[in-house]
Amino acid sequence: MSAPPRYRWQPTTAEIAAGAGIPASQVVRFDHNTSPFPTEWAVEIAASAATMLNEYPGATYLEIRRAAAGYSGTAVERIAVGAGIDELLLLAGRAFLAPGMRAAAVVPGYPLYEIASLQVGASFTGVAAAAPDFVFPLDGVVAAARNADLVWLCVPDNPSGARVDDDAIDAVIAATDGLVVLDAAYAEFAGDRWAPWVERNHNLLVLHTLSKGFGVGGIRVGYGIGHPDLVDAIDGVRPPGSIASISVEVAVAALGAPDRMASRVDVIISERTRLTGELSRLGLRVLPSSTNFVLCDVGSAAAGVADRLLRRGLVVRTYAAGGPLDRYLRFTVRTPHEDDRLIAALEEELA
Amino acid sequence: MSAPPRYRWQPTTAEIAAGAGIPASQVVRFDHNTSPFPTEWAVEIAASAATMLNEYPGATYLEIRRAAAGYSGTAVERIAVGAGIDELLLLAGRAFLAPGMRAAAVVPGYPLYEIASLQVGASFTGVAAAAPDFVFPLDGVVAAARNADLVWLCVPDNPSGARVDDDAIDAVIAATDGLVVLDAAYAEFAGDRWAPWVERNHNLLVLHTLSKGFGVGGIRVGYGIGHPDLVDAIDGVRPPGSIASISVEVAVAALGAPDRMASRVDVIISERTRLTGELSRLGLRVLPSSTNFVLCDVGSAAAGVADRLLRRGLVVRTYAAGGPLDRYLRFTVRTPHEDDRLIAALEEELA
Repeated sequence: MSAPPRYRWQPTTAEIAAGAGIPASQVVRFDHNTSPFPTEWAVEIAASAATMLNEYPGATYLEIRRAAAGYSGTAVERIAVGAGIDELLLLAGRAFLAPGMRAAAVVPGYPLYEIASLQVGASFTGVAAAAPDFVFPLDGVVAAARNADLVWLCVPDNPSGARVDDDAIDAVIAATDGLVVLDAAYAEFAGDRWAPWVERNHNLLVLHTLSKGFGVGGIRVGYGIGHPDLVDAIDGVRPPGSIASISVEVAVAALGAPDRMASRVDVIISERTRLTGELSRLGLRVLPSSTNFVLCDVGSAAAGVADRLLRRGLVVRTYAAGGPLDRYLRFTVRTPHEDDRLIAALEEELA
Repeated sequence: MSAPPRYRWQPTTAEIAAGAGIPASQVVRFDHNTSPFPTEWAVEIAASAATMLNEYPGATYLEIRRAAAGYSGTAVERIAVGAGIDELLLLAGRAFLAPGMRAAAVVPGYPLYEIASLQVGASFTGVAAAAPDFVFPLDGVVAAARNADLVWLCVPDNPSGARVDDDAIDAVIAATDGLVVLDAAYAEFAGDRWAPWVERNHNLLVLHTLSKGFGVGGIRVGYGIGHPDLVDAIDGVRPPGSIASISVEVAVAALGAPDRMASRVDVIISERTRLTGELSRLGLRVLPSSTNFVLCDVGSAAAGVADRLLRRGLVVRTYAAGGPLDRYLRFTVRTPHEDDRLIAALEEELA
């Protein structure tokens, strides 16, 4: 048996700070697509929950399910929980794939789709989205979906940032007798609400995270919306208790404050427009985005530029040499101050 | 493909309180083998970490690895991390077992050993430990180990509470060409230090948790000690980021304060002696324990007794009817006040 592909860890902020010879506080993560807003609102919640860390969280995580159901406008029975979308993707692979089964996804895409498929012995078909615009390859995905047991979709898409249109999603769902697992990590930035889709498509499982729009990546909480049979299958392979008890309390508070999330998403969307304009001013081509990041064509110097940014403590997402994205860098939209540091550094490095 | 066995969730404290018609604060978990000591010491740590929940924890969890290596007296390269022993057990199954491979463990034992084996398509052989004392069946385990790719051991044992002797462990390790995964969840109560064992046995992976002796089950952190190749294999299947960022800080603080852990373990060990005496006074047979729980023969009325305790908010561990443990209840050693509630209730119910 050959080893399945591995997830490649990003370097930690402490490692980058040490490498760059700067304090960790000067490192800015433009590579994680997390939120730039500190979470002072969580301090009291965390402090209160911290007095009882001796006991386990309730293993059914009913509090999170209720809060996610309330926010999503669906029934508790339709909510699965996991330690972020990452755990949910791996659980979906385990629950719905097996040796001899077939999975498909657009490539380039989030590497965990392929890892989650191959780790359980399924095959993986990548349907290429082509440079320079990485448009959703609808015909290819529909053709792959006809023969697939599981289709991974990312809406809006990482890394392109594009939000494929509803008709295309419907076409993929209709084409397959298998399951569609839709990674909606960036849903809040696109204004997407998936509960009605799930209610009319029993073969659709939509995965959400609190790491992006809700801005609490540190708690490692995600949830899925799907038919109760799909939720039950995920629960059947879920490790007991992968979400910490403080994370439960913070997740419930986050989901219970959708206005705070929405106002911060609005700020990011405005800042995305500004950042896109500044990058364009530098002569860089920026792909239109429905997310909190932008994919940017930096040309053949991309890897070198990223390396020099890193030495300034500005961590951007790079892509493998020789791959379809090797001219591109991906930048998380952060605060105006942080983005200005990126722009100024890019301006110098590109000069 | 038949469905693999599932982990059975314990009812949550809120559910039990609702069922018993009492406040949740009156519910005492004698079923989880967690610590009874509140964690006020973690409040400041959690509050401080809660301001930055927008960012991800560092995916390599080097801080936890360093702290665990320091506590264990071994090298960082020998430390694996996971969201509790539960995640580490499932990861070990995925890293080291595959369809057609063979796993073995003593039964009755922790159900996750069988689940972790069957979920990845391996076979599972249970070697019976027999009532009434559930002595470690050395000959049977050695025979099974000769044909096994992975042997799960639990030292000290759950559910019996017994600490098998070192010679037996050596015999099992020597008998197999496969891997021995030793679940040392209760190590701190037995005074066990496994790093030297791991350094002389490349086929031994020892799993630890911060949920028992260290008393922070709510953070969901465990670690493994093993040869760097074993650690690397676990990392190859580990979901990125299953430990929350506040949990990282609390775990590091817990591992950095071994004296606090040791003094609380001492308190539990003294209280275990007292609880054992009280249970004996009620005419119940209690198995000798090297853990923070006791297994107790309550006779044919065990299930009914447990049910009536539950209605008082006292949650004890029960075992399946018709199984080898159906006359037994397992009680976590808690505070004298909580244990007195259990004793008084048992005295009434058994009268």
